[in-house]
Amino acid sequence: MKNISMNKCDLLFDFYELAQSNGFLNKGIDETVVWFDMLFRPSPDIGGFAVMAGVNQVTEYIKKLTFSEDDLQYLSSKGLDDSFIEYLRNFKFSCDIWAVPEGTPVFANEPVVKVRGPVIQAQLLETIILLSVNHQSLIATKANRIVRSAGGRAIIEFGSRRAHGIGAALGGARSAYIGGCCATTNVSAAKQYDIPLFGSMSHTWVQMFDSEYDAFCTFARQYPDDCILLIDTYDTMDKGLPNAIKAFNDVLLPMGKRPKGVRIDSGDLAYLSKKIRRVLNESGYPDCDIYAANSLDEYIIRDMLQNGARIDSFLVGERLITSASNPVMAGVYKLSAIEKNGEIIPKIKISENVAKITTPYPKLLWRLFDNETGKAIADVLTTEDEDLSDCKEYELFDPDYTWKRKTVTDFVARQLLVPIFKNGECVYEFPSASNIRSYCAEQIDTLWEEVIRFEYPHNYYVDLSQKLWTLKQNMIDECFSK
Amino acid sequence: MKNISMNKCDLLFDFYELAQSNGFLNKGIDETVVWFDMLFRPSPDIGGFAVMAGVNQVTEYIKKLTFSEDDLQYLSSKGLDDSFIEYLRNFKFSCDIWAVPEGTPVFANEPVVKVRGPVIQAQLLETIILLSVNHQSLIATKANRIVRSAGGRAIIEFGSRRAHGIGAALGGARSAYIGGCCATTNVSAAKQYDIPLFGSMSHTWVQMFDSEYDAFCTFARQYPDDCILLIDTYDTMDKGLPNAIKAFNDVLLPMGKRPKGVRIDSGDLAYLSKKIRRVLNESGYPDCDIYAANSLDEYIIRDMLQNGARIDSFLVGERLITSASNPVMAGVYKLSAIEKNGEIIPKIKISENVAKITTPYPKLLWRLFDNETGKAIADVLTTEDEDLSDCKEYELFDPDYTWKRKTVTDFVARQLLVPIFKNGECVYEFPSASNIRSYCAEQIDTLWEEVIRFEYPHNYYVDLSQKLWTLKQNMIDECFSK
Repeated sequence: MKNISMNKCDLLFDFYELAQSNGFLNKGIDETVVWFDMLFRPSPDIGGFAVMAGVNQVTEYIKKLTFSEDDLQYLSSKGLDDSFIEYLRNFKFSCDIWAVPEGTPVFANEPVVKVRGPVIQAQLLETIILLSVNHQSLIATKANRIVRSAGGRAIIEFGSRRAHGIGAALGGARSAYIGGCCATTNVSAAKQYDIPLFGSMSHTWVQMFDSEYDAFCTFARQYPDDCILLIDTYDTMDKGLPNAIKAFNDVLLPMGKRPKGVRIDSGDLAYLSKKIRRVLNESGYPDCDIYAANSLDEYIIRDMLQNGARIDSFLVGERLITSASNPVMAGVYKLSAIEKNGEIIPKIKISENVAKITTPYPKLLWRLFDNETGKAIADVLTTEDEDLSDCKEYELFDPDYTWKRKTVTDFVARQLLVPIFKNGECVYEFPSASNIRSYCAEQIDTLWEEVIRFEYPHNYYVDLSQKLWTLKQNMIDECFSK
Repeated sequence: MKNISMNKCDLLFDFYELAQSNGFLNKGIDETVVWFDMLFRPSPDIGGFAVMAGVNQVTEYIKKLTFSEDDLQYLSSKGLDDSFIEYLRNFKFSCDIWAVPEGTPVFANEPVVKVRGPVIQAQLLETIILLSVNHQSLIATKANRIVRSAGGRAIIEFGSRRAHGIGAALGGARSAYIGGCCATTNVSAAKQYDIPLFGSMSHTWVQMFDSEYDAFCTFARQYPDDCILLIDTYDTMDKGLPNAIKAFNDVLLPMGKRPKGVRIDSGDLAYLSKKIRRVLNESGYPDCDIYAANSLDEYIIRDMLQNGARIDSFLVGERLITSASNPVMAGVYKLSAIEKNGEIIPKIKISENVAKITTPYPKLLWRLFDNETGKAIADVLTTEDEDLSDCKEYELFDPDYTWKRKTVTDFVARQLLVPIFKNGECVYEFPSASNIRSYCAEQIDTLWEEVIRFEYPHNYYVDLSQKLWTLKQNMIDECFSK
């Protein structure tokens, strides 16, 4: 595979990861086994959930993680000790990593990636894990919102030109597809991830010919089975649409072909689409779709459809590929425990911002599904040694308002974290992007409507087991009593 | 150079670029020479200007632009003709490209990149030019705003973990540096672009030790010349700060060293910084700087400084690396002319949205500097054959309100577009990122304060020459009279 632009990068670290590791080695604690969690804080756009993505990039990156002599020389010039440079020269990855599979809906404060290994190795993964999972989950989540706003109409991703670099275009296209988009216009992404490829024409095509009609006829002759004409280069209703219909009549009909669509990129899309629909229908083309683009997102699409817009397919670019209304996914990577003489020592980070207090201890993440409806009831974090898989009855309680309690029965509890690396070896077989996309749609179907609506969604339960809650509470109390 | 993650990517096209090119070849117009402009629409954050960046990535990409047999096979499967596949197999780049040098302040509606060449080649550059220049200019612009908000205090870029992929982290770090940041925490970017590297510690370091005091002492011993301690892991004022001062006293002083700083990442940074400053001063450390981080941008920094915050260095992450308050740079790539039998035929794109109407014809971009003050007076777009370099007197006029006129004298006119490629060969020597950064600061100094303020900046003049204005107006009139 020649395309390595998304996954290969040397020295992709924040410098403190190396500076600290240098210190751990000098202090002789480099072999200490530690546990880290990656978790999100609130979901993008204050939505009810996020769609997990980016695990593929983490995996590809780790498989290629090495230090060249050139890299080592650079690091040596930055004040790191020779012994540490030698450590990096012989670097051999041996961590265990678990992650929630891509396409799974996840919630704030859940461990979506869990790492166990020698402290230096686990520390050096911080940037790549956060960068990949933050970015790709952000875009998958946004795409899913946009797809849901369109009520079954097609959403095509075409944001490359406004993406934040090449990796953002490629990873973004993949994530958008996982989130439910039906195609991308990016050729590289389509090829690498086997995503349906979409293309029509740009204003340049129209401008290259002496007349718009000539341009349309030439395009129809070239692509009779895939003829979508862009009709807003000069004047949509007075020039573009009549010229398109004339080209359909003059070129496609004699070939026994039907047009696929017309496209508009400017003007009031809702208003124009209704007028275009009427003219197309009256001209014998009720089967010709209307494609539209112009800084769209879930809010505008929802509003336009409420206006009665007659748009069949939306091309969504900049506001999807940058998640413009909320371009930051605030995932963090936090130490939860260290191992000492076979014993697990839980670790906590206290903060003035209560939401930033971490949950200590290596954890399992369970999702409880109601047997009758198939719907997700709640997620529960437990310690590594708790097992809910055979549990018949479980008492949920809110970790902040502990008097809010509810006992559930007739459910099945499924673990969400699956092994990705075991002793440094990748043990996970990644499904195709297309299979992840189907899985994502299925999993979102297990969430109640109230949890997935855009505005003020219902708070899905993410609870702690009694054991984990008590452990955390004791550590907070202990910290403030000192 | 092993690090190719930012610049190498095969098939980085939107599919219509290939579909159209296939059509151009079939129609026998593939050798037609065309002119394209890349231009921005309004600047990010409704600011007065943007900082140009991203030209380096475009150049590196073009130098490596080839089609592998694997790529060609894929394209063949997507309905492109054999003749076109053969064309791509023998692809040889031969365009001319001009661009405004990186670090230059630019304004809406100016051609910041200009391409001349055979239509297929010029068309195939659309995605890479837009993607690179949009992204990197966006971040350089945002960085410059943030740097200006801090009134000379240091801004350190540390956004990798929230960047939109690896390329966004690397290109973003470079752009942030160009825009005026003084360092990055990203090791790969620092090495590739020779940017000062910054690193201190994370909460993990503190948590790895039995006590915060131990953690601080160990760090001070390891990095006595570069000792910045993160003091908010447990309790900033009651634990972190006293432990830091004790570690300074117990470890650094006996070594004859001074601490470099303390850092806070949470709580109210303005409030805490004032309290910390007082304690540090009273403890004999008035020279110990205060570093702060927590979702900062130019608005929060400006407000905190107005609150009297005593912060010396700001670590700025997610809101810089994603330009969170305005994550989309809406640059477009538009055909301005085609050549036919040695003649230049201007091309225009009309739109219902008046701002989307393009300016036809191959253009020059001039900046007029006042000889007395050295300040930029206005930018003027002219046709390729107009020369303002020896002009002694020039009448500026607003292209929308043409009665607004002003005659300027005693100025020097400088062309902003410089040759990057000539006949497909790169002819531009890129300055170092550090030199671009200095140039950027100098150039921004040529703008009036009123043009660079954050809120409702004064509209800088971007005018058309009389000849260009008349040509455009005639084409608009002609289009609507038909």
